[in-house]
Order: sequence, then structure tokens, then C-alpha cells
Amino acid sequence: MVSGQRLSDVFRAVGPLYREAAQRVARDEQLEGVSTGVRAVLEELLAEGRQTMPAVARNLGTTRQYVQRMVEEAAAAGLVRSVPNPAHRRSPLLALTPAGRAAIRRILRREQAALAGAARDLSDRDVDACLRVLHRLRQAVREGG
Amino acid sequence: MVSGQRLSDVFRAVGPLYREAAQRVARDEQLEGVSTGVRAVLEELLAEGRQTMPAVARNLGTTRQYVQRMVEEAAAAGLVRSVPNPAHRRSPLLALTPAGRAAIRRILRREQAALAGAARDLSDRDVDACLRVLHRLRQAVREGG
Repeated sequence: MVSGQRLSDVFRAVGPLYREAAQRVARDEQLEGVSTGVRAVLEELLAEGRQTMPAVARNLGTTRQYVQRMVEEAAAAGLVRSVPNPAHRRSPLLALTPAGRAAIRRILRREQAALAGAARDLSDRDVDACLRVLHRLRQAVREGG
Repeated sequence: MVSGQRLSDVFRAVGPLYREAAQRVARDEQLEGVSTGVRAVLEELLAEGRQTMPAVARNLGTTRQYVQRMVEEAAAAGLVRSVPNPAHRRSPLLALTPAGRAAIRRILRREQAALAGAARDLSDRDVDACLRVLHRLRQAVREGG
């Protein structure tokens, strides 16, 4: 059991990290020609596999309208495609194309190389604890009063 | 030493949490009449004490122009004020007014009450590790390649 103050401290760390990482990602856009929003969709599909558009929106914590626009952009660039959904004929699945998979892998590899310094000081236990805290906070934000 | 993939996992958790928390904060705006941006400035001044406008921008990971607008909005509402800076006469310090301090405390109390469920499952060690990871990642983003 931790104090509410400590949980606020986590949010206070999340905000600046998110904003600075987003600026960083935006600066790197020209390298791969992939916008920040498309990058997020590609990363989600790589990490969690093919899924419906509403599932992508829910997982990214954003709106279906936004994801729809990003998917159109990504499809036009040949990075994602729709595939039939065996479970729901009316709700196709989004999947990476081979080019999409290659692009997001290159992007992540570059980002991860830039984070190598941070990796040196951290342990897997630290990261496990961090992910546990972030996931519980997200649940709390979703359910919370 | 952790893998770059694991650090990407942390960013992948930070993004949705940030976006959902921001939506939540935006929904709560009407309660206190304080916008999301003003709320961030008030919280920063409460946590870290009086400081210059450039310092607030740097700490929040945002631009001076944005902080300037938020400070004008907050000053107009009587929530922050400028005080002389003993170290630099040309760069005044921003400080909370008593009304600003009371407002941000009410906001944080309400948010923390909504997070009580998350607090129950987490330990101080988890939160310490989480903050360590987030701070190292922010340093890495700032320095990184």
C-alpha cells in the first residue's frame, strides 16, 4: 500500500517523459517517413498481433477516429492491410504487411540503440516493477471514480 | 542491464497511460475551473517550489511559449504570481498564491482518492523502481543519439 502522493509522483514523471519522447519520435519521422501516429499503430500490431480497429484504439488509449486516420495513412503507404476476421465477419483485422513489419523493426532498433545508456543502469526487476505500477495505474484511471 | 525491447515495453505502457490520464484530467477541469495545462504548472510549483518560467518549461518537458500562456491564464485567475528572484533580477520566480495552493491540493486529493484501489496492490519498492526507470529513460531520451 503506497500513499496517493507517491502515485501522483509517478504521473508527474510520466508526463514529461511522454512529451519529450513524443518530440524525439517526431524529429525522427523523416528518417522512416512514418508519422508519430502511424508509428504507434505499427508498434501495437507488432507487439500484440493482428486485431480490430476498436481494439487498437482501446489499447493505445486513443479514439477510433484517430486510429482510422492513421490506418488509412499506413495502408496508403503499404504498411498495414485488412484481413478477414474469422470471429466477426463485419469487423476485419488489421495486420502488418512485410514492409510495415520491417519499418517498425528498424524504428524500434534505432530507438533502442539510443536507450542503451539507460539499459546499463537498470535491472529487469526494476522494469518489471515499473510495468506493474504503470499497468495498475492505467486500470485505476479507467475505473477510477 | 535490460534489453532494449524491455525499455520499449515501458514506453508502450507510458503512452496509453498518459493519454487516458490526460482525458481524465480534462473531464475533471470543470470541477475546479483549472485547465490541464494550468494544472500541470500548479502541480510543478507545489512539488518543486518557486522557480523561473524556463525552469518550469524544462521540468514539464514542454515549451516556454506554452508555459507562458498557462502562467498568464493562471495569473489572471489569481492562482500564481511573480516574485522577485534574488539570484537574477531579470528572471522573476513563479510562485503559487494561497488560492493556487488550495486549488491544486484539492485537485490532487481528488485524483489520489480515485487511485486508492491501485495503491492497495502496490508497494513503495515498486514505486521506487518505477520512478528510477522513468527518470533514467527521460535522461536517455534527452541525451540519446
